[in-house]
Amino acid sequence: MQVTNRSDDRPEQDSVERAIDQIGDRWTFLILRDAFFGQRRFDDIQKSTGASPNILSDRLKKLVGFGILEKRAYQDRPQRHEYRLTEKGRDLYPAIVLLMRWGDRWTGECDRPPLTLVHKTCGKASAPVLVCDECGEAIHVHDMDWEAARY
Amino acid sequence: MQVTNRSDDRPEQDSVERAIDQIGDRWTFLILRDAFFGQRRFDDIQKSTGASPNILSDRLKKLVGFGILEKRAYQDRPQRHEYRLTEKGRDLYPAIVLLMRWGDRWTGECDRPPLTLVHKTCGKASAPVLVCDECGEAIHVHDMDWEAARY
Repeated sequence: MQVTNRSDDRPEQDSVERAIDQIGDRWTFLILRDAFFGQRRFDDIQKSTGASPNILSDRLKKLVGFGILEKRAYQDRPQRHEYRLTEKGRDLYPAIVLLMRWGDRWTGECDRPPLTLVHKTCGKASAPVLVCDECGEAIHVHDMDWEAARY
Repeated sequence: MQVTNRSDDRPEQDSVERAIDQIGDRWTFLILRDAFFGQRRFDDIQKSTGASPNILSDRLKKLVGFGILEKRAYQDRPQRHEYRLTEKGRDLYPAIVLLMRWGDRWTGECDRPPLTLVHKTCGKASAPVLVCDECGEAIHVHDMDWEAARY
């Protein structure tokens, strides 16, 4: 991204900061990762993330409050709940996938990624890539510029 | 992502978790966002993020330790340093862009995004999208499956 001295044009609290305020916490990311792997129940998420019950309760409550997860009863007697991704939550999938790919490339302890994604639409092992919606070319930081939206 | 009962195949610590262990902290995300806006100097980053000097020092040290930022002298007398993204750091750009787009869509307080990205390669305002590298179709969570890599 080309950067000039236009920092003063930046909005006070931008969308990255607002996104981070909702999900930028280690436990929250691990809960979201688990949600994408289909973990919906408190005990399963606790086991998988290693979070303490207090922390897990707190983060789940926040995620429900932000409308990223919703709490649904799946059993009546005794009443039991599970946590499911809302549309807002599911829409985080591409960002989580890119964090995973980055983790594969830069933090791996072996030279093959530990998980292969399969794109069911085409049936192939997929390495998702971010492209420009106008020209279809891959997005690289050096090719990007930005301007403040005008109102 | 279709999820079956294959959770036991999941690696103990996957790439999402390793990525989050390096960058999954509110201040770290804000420092990275600033880095992509060209903020390189301690005082500028402090002003922009609102982090206390202690927290900022700690996070910058960790980012340098992980090889995401590098510390370079830009002045000799008195010696002054700046923090620049490494290749590993620059490679986080697509993930940060998707978090920003998600923030635009789901956390905005007005109906237009506060920042417009411009793809210099094609010269147009760009809404980057994640696609499959095999077929070029957009990635949606429901179209994805995964399998553990075999060694």
